Amino acid sequence: MLTKFQNHLNSQFSFLKDKKLFIAVSGGIDSIVLVDLLYKLNYEIAVLHCNFSLRDAESDGDEAFVKSFCKERNIEVIVQKFDTKQFASDYKLSIQVAARKLRYDWFYEQLEKRSFDFILTAHHLNDSLETFLINFSRSTGLDGLTGIPAQNDKIIRPLLPFSREEIEVYAKENEIQWREDSSNSSDKYLRNKLRHDVIPILKEVQPNLLSSFENTVKHLQQAQSLVNDASRIIYKEVVTEDDNSIKINLSKLIQLTNYQAYLFQWLKEFGFVAWDDIYDLVSAQSGKKVLSPEFILVKDRDFFILTSKIDSQINQKFLIEKEDSKVNIPLKFTFCNVSDISITDSNSIFVDENKLQFPLTLRKWQEGDYFYPFGMTGKKKLSKYFKDEKFSLIDKLTTWILCSDNQIVWIINKRMDDRFKVNNNTTTILKITIT
Amino acid sequence: MLTKFQNHLNSQFSFLKDKKLFIAVSGGIDSIVLVDLLYKLNYEIAVLHCNFSLRDAESDGDEAFVKSFCKERNIEVIVQKFDTKQFASDYKLSIQVAARKLRYDWFYEQLEKRSFDFILTAHHLNDSLETFLINFSRSTGLDGLTGIPAQNDKIIRPLLPFSREEIEVYAKENEIQWREDSSNSSDKYLRNKLRHDVIPILKEVQPNLLSSFENTVKHLQQAQSLVNDASRIIYKEVVTEDDNSIKINLSKLIQLTNYQAYLFQWLKEFGFVAWDDIYDLVSAQSGKKVLSPEFILVKDRDFFILTSKIDSQINQKFLIEKEDSKVNIPLKFTFCNVSDISITDSNSIFVDENKLQFPLTLRKWQEGDYFYPFGMTGKKKLSKYFKDEKFSLIDKLTTWILCSDNQIVWIINKRMDDRFKVNNNTTTILKITIT
Repeated sequence: MLTKFQNHLNSQFSFLKDKKLFIAVSGGIDSIVLVDLLYKLNYEIAVLHCNFSLRDAESDGDEAFVKSFCKERNIEVIVQKFDTKQFASDYKLSIQVAARKLRYDWFYEQLEKRSFDFILTAHHLNDSLETFLINFSRSTGLDGLTGIPAQNDKIIRPLLPFSREEIEVYAKENEIQWREDSSNSSDKYLRNKLRHDVIPILKEVQPNLLSSFENTVKHLQQAQSLVNDASRIIYKEVVTEDDNSIKINLSKLIQLTNYQAYLFQWLKEFGFVAWDDIYDLVSAQSGKKVLSPEFILVKDRDFFILTSKIDSQINQKFLIEKEDSKVNIPLKFTFCNVSDISITDSNSIFVDENKLQFPLTLRKWQEGDYFYPFGMTGKKKLSKYFKDEKFSLIDKLTTWILCSDNQIVWIINKRMDDRFKVNNNTTTILKITIT
Repeated sequence: MLTKFQNHLNSQFSFLKDKKLFIAVSGGIDSIVLVDLLYKLNYEIAVLHCNFSLRDAESDGDEAFVKSFCKERNIEVIVQKFDTKQFASDYKLSIQVAARKLRYDWFYEQLEKRSFDFILTAHHLNDSLETFLINFSRSTGLDGLTGIPAQNDKIIRPLLPFSREEIEVYAKENEIQWREDSSNSSDKYLRNKLRHDVIPILKEVQPNLLSSFENTVKHLQQAQSLVNDASRIIYKEVVTEDDNSIKINLSKLIQLTNYQAYLFQWLKEFGFVAWDDIYDLVSAQSGKKVLSPEFILVKDRDFFILTSKIDSQINQKFLIEKEDSKVNIPLKFTFCNVSDISITDSNSIFVDENKLQFPLTLRKWQEGDYFYPFGMTGKKKLSKYFKDEKFSLIDKLTTWILCSDNQIVWIINKRMDDRFKVNNNTTTILKITIT
């Protein structure tokens, strides 16, 4: 397996060779084997371990095991302990969602803090097969059947071509110890059912199930890329965009025999689900509409016009009072005073509270908006910023803006304004977080 | 269920209303329920039943049951008894392939003979789900996951949106009798495994499995239509065809990041399977090639050139002697003398044996070929015929031609020549069949 793994890295991830790599390690067989493989191939690695404090002594046992495993090999290990239950209750999240959020936020924080390049996780072919079957048993589109991606931004999954069996054989042959899997995944019950009851029967019928699946996923990924091409090509021919709406030319559209497929591709990202209503709208009378949680699709003579609901209620603003420590609508915010600024991500900002005028307002962008991008001295029109950052129409329509006395404080999740930043004169630091 | 079925017919198959419909009936619950539904809705129906003589008394019991079921309702029933084992052994086919061939050939023969319009079969949602899982457990592309088609030429499957459970409930409520399923499908073992061991577990996890699956299939069919669009659009930009080859412009092709996906789409119908070799060929030196059973893909400087192997061995001809009653290479033929011509399909022709000069030859088409299309008086260039019939390149390259003294007798499976037809002066009729 070591050789196959090395070949796989050389052919698919040759760019990792001189990079600094974190490995996300639970202590289970998959992640421990991943560390062992990369260690033997002399990659520059360090280990990240999350202790979610969910199973008391067992969690601490995992932590101790990971530490000692790494110490024997002189691999640096960074451990973070989380009070997951508290966090989940504070933010009204399920334990699983909370753990995932804590884990990935911390991973990205460590990447930045330590100037590492990538985080490697130990997902393998069986995980991908289980994910396929879970998505399949629900209702899904092609994108739900294309497997776990091998790379997702800074997250890389080099074990995806390997089956659980290969990993187990390797661990035994190399006398590697591990901790029994301690996943807290919400779909553990489901995965166990598939793992123990469904997949063995499929394997009985088709002994090459896993390698067949690997091929199938490759073909489906290729098909997905062609779907995206067709969608993009026809979009250019049939759709026009302006600042706040998109216009679908119906007489061009319905020349396509499969125009419903295109409507589905284009509109699904706007949260529509009532597909039959949308298909009926094509031949409905002018003025009829179909709604998604945030958008309106109107039939207007020979066109479909898609606009944001907010845009159509132009004065809709949400006020945030000084006393509010949490806001739930239209986004979930928390506000808390902190003594110092710390490493952050796109979900939070630190501002000088005394520079704010309450109530703050939360709204969508308007023509004429400008702001002072954080870290720059000048001001910039928001329309120019959107263009430079290659915002799509949906990005523009879904982006919220936090304002103080109609000055932009934060283009939420994107960029804060320089005027409100913390400096040496700041006496009260307010941390604003989107949860 | 009757109402839901009626609505389904009205929305998807409204064109069936005034048509003459055969129903393929085994006597099992699915086909019997289909007859009952269509009978109650007053469609103009007749029943086709195949007795494959594979299970002796049981087969005869099925036949008797179907006859009596139809008699009670005054529905015409046409029964055909086959010696399936003999046929399978004669043509060296598996029992299952033989039964399928006998069934569909006979169905189409009856359609023509009786001037009926369509044949309805009773495939339902569970069949489609099982087919999905069978294809999935093997290696498949998107086309293997888009379910059983609702219509395929003259074959229509109006029960596809209905689950086995719905059909069972309907049969019980309406006190309908049926024969236990007598399928001889080669994948019966596999289907039973899925039906009894796999699908119930998936349903336990996801009670809406079947309706989810129905949605999934719709989405995948839509995706497939977009894949076909992209494939066609890019083909026009990158590929040129001439009479006997296609040329893929590699410098245009590799500008696409997903060019492998296009190569897969374009080349799979030519029988290629060594995909990695083909992908490597893109950067290989001029002159290298990859083979499929019938085709050659050559790298020629900045192009891929695809030609038929036969074309590249221009003199390759297969001779058929007068004594040959069977030919196996390159196609499977049988020759037999018959006393009269009967209803036929595209797989066989009747010729005046005395007009033939043996040995006959079997070859691909050549520039300059012409023939006298059956039923017409004049002659026609083959290149013109191909154009009029909208033959694709692959059609032209895969079509075989049977010649007598270099006169075309039959463009196999397409059109016979008028010069060799049976007429009043014919003394010896030869039936030539492709099996």
